[in-house]
Amino acid sequence: MVDVVGLREETPGCAGLVFLDNAGASLVPRQVHEAVVSHLELESRVGGYEAEGLAAELVEESTAQVAGLIGASPREVVFFEGASQAWSQALGAVVLEPGQRVLTTTSEYAGNGVGLLRMAALRGVRVQVVPDDADGVLDVGVLEEELGRGDVGLVAINHMPTHNGLVNPAEAVGKLCARFGAVYLLDACQSVGQWEVDVERIGCDLLSGTGRKYLRGPRGTGFLYVRDGVRLGEPLSVNHIGGEWSGPDSYRVLAGAAGFASFEHSVAARIGLGVAARYARGVGMGWARERIGGLAGLLREGLAGVPGVAVCDRGRERSGIVTFTVAGREAPWVVGELRERGVRAGVSRPGEQRWSGAGEGSVVRASVHYYNTGEELGRVMDEVGRLV
Amino acid sequence: MVDVVGLREETPGCAGLVFLDNAGASLVPRQVHEAVVSHLELESRVGGYEAEGLAAELVEESTAQVAGLIGASPREVVFFEGASQAWSQALGAVVLEPGQRVLTTTSEYAGNGVGLLRMAALRGVRVQVVPDDADGVLDVGVLEEELGRGDVGLVAINHMPTHNGLVNPAEAVGKLCARFGAVYLLDACQSVGQWEVDVERIGCDLLSGTGRKYLRGPRGTGFLYVRDGVRLGEPLSVNHIGGEWSGPDSYRVLAGAAGFASFEHSVAARIGLGVAARYARGVGMGWARERIGGLAGLLREGLAGVPGVAVCDRGRERSGIVTFTVAGREAPWVVGELRERGVRAGVSRPGEQRWSGAGEGSVVRASVHYYNTGEELGRVMDEVGRLV
Repeated sequence: MVDVVGLREETPGCAGLVFLDNAGASLVPRQVHEAVVSHLELESRVGGYEAEGLAAELVEESTAQVAGLIGASPREVVFFEGASQAWSQALGAVVLEPGQRVLTTTSEYAGNGVGLLRMAALRGVRVQVVPDDADGVLDVGVLEEELGRGDVGLVAINHMPTHNGLVNPAEAVGKLCARFGAVYLLDACQSVGQWEVDVERIGCDLLSGTGRKYLRGPRGTGFLYVRDGVRLGEPLSVNHIGGEWSGPDSYRVLAGAAGFASFEHSVAARIGLGVAARYARGVGMGWARERIGGLAGLLREGLAGVPGVAVCDRGRERSGIVTFTVAGREAPWVVGELRERGVRAGVSRPGEQRWSGAGEGSVVRASVHYYNTGEELGRVMDEVGRLV
Repeated sequence: MVDVVGLREETPGCAGLVFLDNAGASLVPRQVHEAVVSHLELESRVGGYEAEGLAAELVEESTAQVAGLIGASPREVVFFEGASQAWSQALGAVVLEPGQRVLTTTSEYAGNGVGLLRMAALRGVRVQVVPDDADGVLDVGVLEEELGRGDVGLVAINHMPTHNGLVNPAEAVGKLCARFGAVYLLDACQSVGQWEVDVERIGCDLLSGTGRKYLRGPRGTGFLYVRDGVRLGEPLSVNHIGGEWSGPDSYRVLAGAAGFASFEHSVAARIGLGVAARYARGVGMGWARERIGGLAGLLREGLAGVPGVAVCDRGRERSGIVTFTVAGREAPWVVGELRERGVRAGVSRPGEQRWSGAGEGSVVRASVHYYNTGEELGRVMDEVGRLV
């Protein structure tokens, strides 16, 4: 039995706000904030290098905690400034032969979309968007057909998109990728810290995640999981941390996740990321998923009952992301009005994903976390009702 | 007349230590620390996105301050997690045709060395190390000859290396690059915050810098300067911040520095970097250079007078980096002993630069900042004398 009151007390931001921008950047627990500030204070007293040395165990623990959260081994995890940086570096290291295809999904994040097109130009490959099924998620049947046609070097999809409450069939995709021998890169930005994300069960080869969203870690943190033994080429950029000299004019990239490492980073932020991962494991991702799902379902149901409000979420399974429109009102206006009333939600714009269908307007995105309460959501429904 | 006592009072780390690891990571001023922590506190109260919005002016000011420090326009500056990331992305965007040569220097940082070899493999170019002159710095005469032979797409050198007090002839190199039409990428990690670094006077097209060294900014910060109008290709990795959609399946990379931008980062750290740059401008880089140069000269002179101590610094001009060996003692042992006596110095290992000559052992690196005092350096000389 998790103590929600206690979790809220550990989250200073809960006191004054109904915080529903967790798919943007969530509220960090006090423990995360204090760990970050404490390391910054140490740095200001003894300098950044000595502080890093003194915190060596904490830093190591960070990798272990993030790895533990996703069912990986610590040596399969490497940290980045953000998930996009992690995702881009992973993509750049996938072995792609000219003429091969890269498959993705309609709901892929715009940043990934541009990244895929860039890689298509660099490697001479073609990006193909697998259509959705009737429920609005990646059509596994079509994916199977496309994989069966051969020439697919990579399947790059998201677990949960940023603009809709749908959940893509990540495990089914993993089984198909394994069967057809395609590398599988999963953007798990929205799912890590919200659900059980288990790299073994999903069967992905590469997975990117961020600290700031459901995981409740510091800004400026992200990570990449690289499955042991997955066949990769060299990352596009290598330095003497990810690579080692093998001769006067040659180097060798370290195998697996280690090959992606670079030297400089915020040690304080990485320590905070580890504390956030430990916190998530303490809360329990099974419980978090149930609680978030329950609250989000409640909010969807309530909003659907408000005349003039349309809930936009698709999919068979749903994440904590609740998207809706209010008839005759622009989403930014709705979010602004809610803001005046102490509710923090976000706007999801069509440009944030490119292939999900043209002509859609912006939607309101109210992303629920486990620290929200039914009472808060009731208040949100009331406030939205007044805006119609 | 700069008030050194005041500067030291603003630097909590000065109180207990003789801090001579400024070429590693220096001590941040209280103002930098407080700005970072203050933003983190805001984030924990209102969430990372709203905090960023509230701090929009501070963030913009950060870019302006860093740009101002190096004589650039704000639109020519883009922030990264570190200088290596900035340098790598810059390198990846330089247009290099197969068969061209990239010229570098013997003192180039190992991370850059690996990065250059990686790019050589990716682009089919050849890395050539320009030898040093009699003073141990890049031989400008040889560089001129090599540029004159044509086929040079890029000159990538450092302003001040990490392992020696020498200073490379950055301005003379700039004149030659302009004359022969080669792109000029300068690693200014050690010089920004220590000297006047003026991109116009140097004539570089691309310049990378870090926050944590002489600039006294937070860890996890770096930046790239991209000269307006310099001809570049696309960065190796692009996302929807550095690029924009130009059609259903196409994008356009933004011109100049903007094309290198990505979304996620530590807003707090970037604010801190701006405060550090403003602080540096307030102190005055002309004064800083003179003070650091004077103190480093004093230390070199004193150490050279200690029997058994050999100062290793080369070059005509010298930076604040003082390197030396103690006869019969390994550098890590010397640094460890100094540490016991309240002095923080570093070890510079031969692996940190690859092309500066084989067989060199590690050296002690005592890197002086303007907040050090003659009294502190006298103490260091005494302590080193006791270790002989």
